[in-house]
Amino acid sequence: MRQSLLFLKTQRQPPKDETFSNAQLLEQAGYIHKLSAGVYSLLPLGLRVINNIARIIRKEMNAMGGQELFMPALHPLENYIQTGRDKIDVLFHLETVAGKKMVLGQSHEEVITPLAQRYISSYRDLPLSLYQIQVKFRNELRAKSGILRGREFMMKDLYSFHRDEEDLDQYYEKMKAAYFRIFDRAGLGDVTHITYASGGSFSKYSHEFQTITDAGEDTIHVCPKCGVAVNQELLHEQSTCPECNHSKLDMKKSIEVGNIFKLKTKFSGAFKLSYVDEQGGARLVQMGCYGIGLGRLMGTIAEIHHDQRGLVWPKSVTPYQVHLLCLSERTATVQMANDIYESLVKCGVDVLYDNRQESAGIKLKDADLLGISIRLVIGEKTGQKVEIKFRDQSGIELVETDELIKTINQHYCEGV
Amino acid sequence: MRQSLLFLKTQRQPPKDETFSNAQLLEQAGYIHKLSAGVYSLLPLGLRVINNIARIIRKEMNAMGGQELFMPALHPLENYIQTGRDKIDVLFHLETVAGKKMVLGQSHEEVITPLAQRYISSYRDLPLSLYQIQVKFRNELRAKSGILRGREFMMKDLYSFHRDEEDLDQYYEKMKAAYFRIFDRAGLGDVTHITYASGGSFSKYSHEFQTITDAGEDTIHVCPKCGVAVNQELLHEQSTCPECNHSKLDMKKSIEVGNIFKLKTKFSGAFKLSYVDEQGGARLVQMGCYGIGLGRLMGTIAEIHHDQRGLVWPKSVTPYQVHLLCLSERTATVQMANDIYESLVKCGVDVLYDNRQESAGIKLKDADLLGISIRLVIGEKTGQKVEIKFRDQSGIELVETDELIKTINQHYCEGV
Repeated sequence: MRQSLLFLKTQRQPPKDETFSNAQLLEQAGYIHKLSAGVYSLLPLGLRVINNIARIIRKEMNAMGGQELFMPALHPLENYIQTGRDKIDVLFHLETVAGKKMVLGQSHEEVITPLAQRYISSYRDLPLSLYQIQVKFRNELRAKSGILRGREFMMKDLYSFHRDEEDLDQYYEKMKAAYFRIFDRAGLGDVTHITYASGGSFSKYSHEFQTITDAGEDTIHVCPKCGVAVNQELLHEQSTCPECNHSKLDMKKSIEVGNIFKLKTKFSGAFKLSYVDEQGGARLVQMGCYGIGLGRLMGTIAEIHHDQRGLVWPKSVTPYQVHLLCLSERTATVQMANDIYESLVKCGVDVLYDNRQESAGIKLKDADLLGISIRLVIGEKTGQKVEIKFRDQSGIELVETDELIKTINQHYCEGV
Repeated sequence: MRQSLLFLKTQRQPPKDETFSNAQLLEQAGYIHKLSAGVYSLLPLGLRVINNIARIIRKEMNAMGGQELFMPALHPLENYIQTGRDKIDVLFHLETVAGKKMVLGQSHEEVITPLAQRYISSYRDLPLSLYQIQVKFRNELRAKSGILRGREFMMKDLYSFHRDEEDLDQYYEKMKAAYFRIFDRAGLGDVTHITYASGGSFSKYSHEFQTITDAGEDTIHVCPKCGVAVNQELLHEQSTCPECNHSKLDMKKSIEVGNIFKLKTKFSGAFKLSYVDEQGGARLVQMGCYGIGLGRLMGTIAEIHHDQRGLVWPKSVTPYQVHLLCLSERTATVQMANDIYESLVKCGVDVLYDNRQESAGIKLKDADLLGISIRLVIGEKTGQKVEIKFRDQSGIELVETDELIKTINQHYCEGV
């Protein structure tokens, strides 16, 4: 993509109405745009990051046997009356012209449970895992923390259905491992802790995945021995490490990037979702649910991976693989940059090519702000070579043009 | 995908609460599920068809220079007051707990125009094309015709921005050609007519793409000479062919599958979206908008492409490329079917493999109902060969297993 054509204008200063790095940087760098409190547009660069995050998530959910579908956002209120959740305060209420009371989906248990009922009748239909990547709505009193807590946000939610608690437990443990792989690949592995949290009325605990950062809204207490954490809300009943029983936990601010929950029979009971077992008896289906907010994950990555000059995307989610800058207006140099751009595109590399008529200073500053994983510079000083710099390192290197593809491919093959 | 694991239960009878083939068949075959009037879930097979439709659309929109982004569904009401559209009756109204009045997006002119304003300042920033594939909400009095007119639906909407009417006109003509390519590739080319429709207050005409079918809600008058049509609503002022002036037009029922519209300065005027031209003067930006409903397109394809036995997907949108049926329980035959399934998957073919413990009759009936483009049958009668049948043809053929990939690839290489 030629940057002169890209729908992108970076701003010299961070926006004044945002206080968190994630939104400041993402908005300043032209990844997102705030329409209203807690409601953001994803601009082309932001959508590319979200699509990369979605790709990582889909891979793991498919490997977990998840089947993707897509459920609506408009839900009949009656489904929530059936589960007793019609009074929860984050629901947006509305009404059709025909007078039917609806709410906007803040989650999809009330839709997927009756849907699964049409499919599940026998033990042979279990286990079953269904997921979607879809937009949720929550009427938050204060939408804050940039894109971390929005009124409208894209979420992956998977729901699993099991014949008994044992099967649910096994699947739940495998999902923990899948979630760690997702956060690892998204560049948050080192600072993300599985955290014991309140389990609601049916389970003792649920589990959150909390990423440590001072920008976080949550407070957790991390075990320095095994890395497991306890959410502040649970500390009165669980003051030692629930895993290794270590007694001194470290208090940290954190962002919840994922949440998994054993619903057990809470929703299958409400909708009478049962199956016939081998003995011909009817039994309620055991359920689990597993969420990740994609925008929140992008915001968290931005919080963790930035420096004073801008964003520093992990290579797994970088909006383009390579940012090619031409810093000269000399015909021969521009021609060389054009040729390299064309040849990279031909080799299947995703390139953003800064061909704008701007000063070298502005181009270099914007490149740091955008934070694409690899920067290539062609200018009068680079001669017949190309300068390569990795955004997360300080050194630069001159590479022969015919070595370029190899170097780029090496970077992207290592563990992505 | 092994069908025994697929989240799919076909129904013996079409659902009683649907009167249109598109919804009857899609629901009976397990592609969609109605949650509420005009509100449907896309089940795994339906999502695959929608993703294929999205791929076709994205390819053409990208070729038109369109840049993809993703805008929210929650819009501030104040933006609609600014354009005078706050009173249109299909708007869903709601309010945040903080008391801010919002509506659900039924279209995105009120969001994209102020967004584009942050980017467009000079003639150098034009032309610009932005699009998204995103969910719209319309509070329709009667949501009817299956998935053709929903209260919630997925839509591709592209907005173009130009320096003058001449540039808008040129782009608009190119978009007509892109739309025809989309409907061609989606299997509707032969029965889809560009149709003159009312242009609103700023343009004489807008253009619809109308697909002829008795299930349609619209009435159009088609010129038998050049194929151009006139929407019934316009007949009082345009009773002859607007293209070739032929005087006898044929009245037909039809479905509107696309709509393109010259907005000119209707929205740029309301939001003061102007640019500075070469002479330093400020001029309003000229705009166009171009929509296609993805669910409606799927429903229309289902209306046009089905027979008494079920759906007949065009190969461009078929949910799987191949439906492999094993009709025997003999170990050797099952082993052969398993091997062929594995080898097809290895070759990158998208296969749905009916490995269920069901009768041959049920499997063949379900295959016809699902309508996947190629059916492969392995049974006791097929010996070491495989029976191949194209869903849109009546003949069957026996193919050597080592010819299979070639035959499948040939089918999918021809003009998809």
